[in-house]
Amino acid sequence: MNAVPVPAINAQRLLTDITHLAQIGAGPDGSIHRIAGNKADWAGRDWIDKTMRVEGLYSYYDETGNVFARRQATSGPWLLIGSHADTVPGGGHLDGAYGVIAAMEVLRTLHETDHPVADHVETVAWFDEDGVTPTSNGGLVGSTALTQHPHLDELVGYLELHVEQGPRMEASGLELSPVTGIVGVRRYTLTVRGQENHAGTTPFSLRADAGRVASRTAASLRDICTEVDPLSIGNVGVIEFGPGAANVVPGSARAEIEIRAGQEAALDDIEAELHESVARIAEEESCTASLNRTSAKPAAQFDKRVVDLVEGVCRDRTKACEPLLSYAGHDASVISTKLPTAMLFVPSTGGYSHSNREHTPEEHLILGTQALLESVIRATGMLMDSKDTSLILAA
Amino acid sequence: MNAVPVPAINAQRLLTDITHLAQIGAGPDGSIHRIAGNKADWAGRDWIDKTMRVEGLYSYYDETGNVFARRQATSGPWLLIGSHADTVPGGGHLDGAYGVIAAMEVLRTLHETDHPVADHVETVAWFDEDGVTPTSNGGLVGSTALTQHPHLDELVGYLELHVEQGPRMEASGLELSPVTGIVGVRRYTLTVRGQENHAGTTPFSLRADAGRVASRTAASLRDICTEVDPLSIGNVGVIEFGPGAANVVPGSARAEIEIRAGQEAALDDIEAELHESVARIAEEESCTASLNRTSAKPAAQFDKRVVDLVEGVCRDRTKACEPLLSYAGHDASVISTKLPTAMLFVPSTGGYSHSNREHTPEEHLILGTQALLESVIRATGMLMDSKDTSLILAA
Repeated sequence: MNAVPVPAINAQRLLTDITHLAQIGAGPDGSIHRIAGNKADWAGRDWIDKTMRVEGLYSYYDETGNVFARRQATSGPWLLIGSHADTVPGGGHLDGAYGVIAAMEVLRTLHETDHPVADHVETVAWFDEDGVTPTSNGGLVGSTALTQHPHLDELVGYLELHVEQGPRMEASGLELSPVTGIVGVRRYTLTVRGQENHAGTTPFSLRADAGRVASRTAASLRDICTEVDPLSIGNVGVIEFGPGAANVVPGSARAEIEIRAGQEAALDDIEAELHESVARIAEEESCTASLNRTSAKPAAQFDKRVVDLVEGVCRDRTKACEPLLSYAGHDASVISTKLPTAMLFVPSTGGYSHSNREHTPEEHLILGTQALLESVIRATGMLMDSKDTSLILAA
Repeated sequence: MNAVPVPAINAQRLLTDITHLAQIGAGPDGSIHRIAGNKADWAGRDWIDKTMRVEGLYSYYDETGNVFARRQATSGPWLLIGSHADTVPGGGHLDGAYGVIAAMEVLRTLHETDHPVADHVETVAWFDEDGVTPTSNGGLVGSTALTQHPHLDELVGYLELHVEQGPRMEASGLELSPVTGIVGVRRYTLTVRGQENHAGTTPFSLRADAGRVASRTAASLRDICTEVDPLSIGNVGVIEFGPGAANVVPGSARAEIEIRAGQEAALDDIEAELHESVARIAEEESCTASLNRTSAKPAAQFDKRVVDLVEGVCRDRTKACEPLLSYAGHDASVISTKLPTAMLFVPSTGGYSHSNREHTPEEHLILGTQALLESVIRATGMLMDSKDTSLILAA
């Protein structure tokens, strides 16, 4: 297969398609409202479906609303590539859309050049990744549905190209990043009980200041994360004191705490340290406190062979390449529980995402798509070979 | 005057009068609603006025609603003693009322025993100390009015007996405390601007987390106060993050901060340290922050001669005596700007005040009143002597 020349993607078509899809569901400020299931979202998937109905390709919807496309008259197995077609309300033109259009571009390029792997690639535009509507149960709807679908058995792996949606790559001057996995996310509610008291007449030594437990915990979270795992992060996004008056020592306090790390073991360690810290601070402040986990999304670790393969492709393309963790969720997280999976990031200017400020330089959009194409070529060979199947590569 | 025996107060009458006034404006749970100007408050002052209309005493209202009483046919000057007759909504039976009734008891005891200083003592039940109603402009209405009234020139000093309203005395096993002054109170609003961001995709190093500035400031306030002045205190009673979601790095934060200290210089130093701390933390967190003073009540330092005199009386009565600062406001604060003033505290069980849980053991109520009587006898002599007046003490 290495003897076959690697085709170049059609950069102009890629950019034009991105611009085209960005107009479907766009508001006057350029932000996009393709909320899963709304008219614009249907129109977007219809455009994807129609665009892939070119001579020799076959495009179809599954029962969930995912849009797939592949070469006609192939029987699989296929390497799946793509991303999601929906946006958050007022979202950006690259989140999801870029990965979908890049996948479409890769398949069309392979098809047009009649590349040997063209028969073994399928594109997907996932339905409802963002999970905005009440019925979507947190999103990742289309990819989750596939994990229960017989079509899964016809697939050998999954690759997803995405904008980073954060500022890390730009800050480090990176052009391409193979993604090693997706952080797990755990959320907690900290509830503190102290003793409401007159803030004048009650000396420090006799207070049970619930506010101090919450403040000190919030102030300490960053150190706890960093000491356990330098790649982990945390956030205190909500804090409230009761009763909430300047001259009353808070008798109660509440905070919402979130932690993210690439491994479950790191999440476990941070959680344990946090429990210990809360207990110690509460004791010091003569309060009682409870830290209750309210949700947990498990960390996803991508297939090391596929990640290494993608990293090899990226390093061939640019020296500005370092592996990254994804700190946001993706369909790849769901699919990685069933198929060898990896992702590829290009930088997000300023780190902006989910807004009309989403931007990635054109050269990086092109570079990412070309890297996806080359990853597909290499991965198809590896994954088809390793799959227990009687099929023989056309090459 | 020392040759004249010190009379003993009528302890049974003191306790009965406290119980009696506690029934005026009492709710079913025993909490009291003599809110300045309401029917119960008028009834309370009417009871005080009527109670002092005994043979040989003269009781009257001034234009503001303060109730004064003194011996008939005396021409002053007088040492003023008393406290306030109103309560907060659902207040306790000792706040204000105890000091008023103790003063009434002292004058009646001196009058009945025909003590030489009886002609030079006037009692007061101040109108509207608590400042609950919108028209009361923060309270201290009656005492503030007196500072503008010609009657002020007929007075030589002011003594106020009060329950501590905090837990310090009980915690230290004190029975009596001469009060050296009343803390000044300054309030601030801390306003922080950062950058709202995705809590997953934004690494710690690239955040401008307004919540951390507020949390760290709240966590540091106690150390700042204690380092500047071990007797100062502070409180963060309110804290809020914007937009207030678990997965969003706070782009804004707000906190309400209060500090109290016995000297303006200490308040100035704490304020300066706080400004410095906020600026340093904001810089470290890549945020901007402003700390705006929203109110300031000046500290009151009582007359050292009178405080020393009261301390002498207390130490003669009990070894369980230490001077204290008052951390709550009192009419004595206002009067101390015009007349030599001191206060005397008895303990508050559990530190409770402004509720039906107000309690002081009977022996302390009696002890405080007897100490007030002895302070009045000693202070009248000292203050009459030092007043530029041609009057000669009857003794």
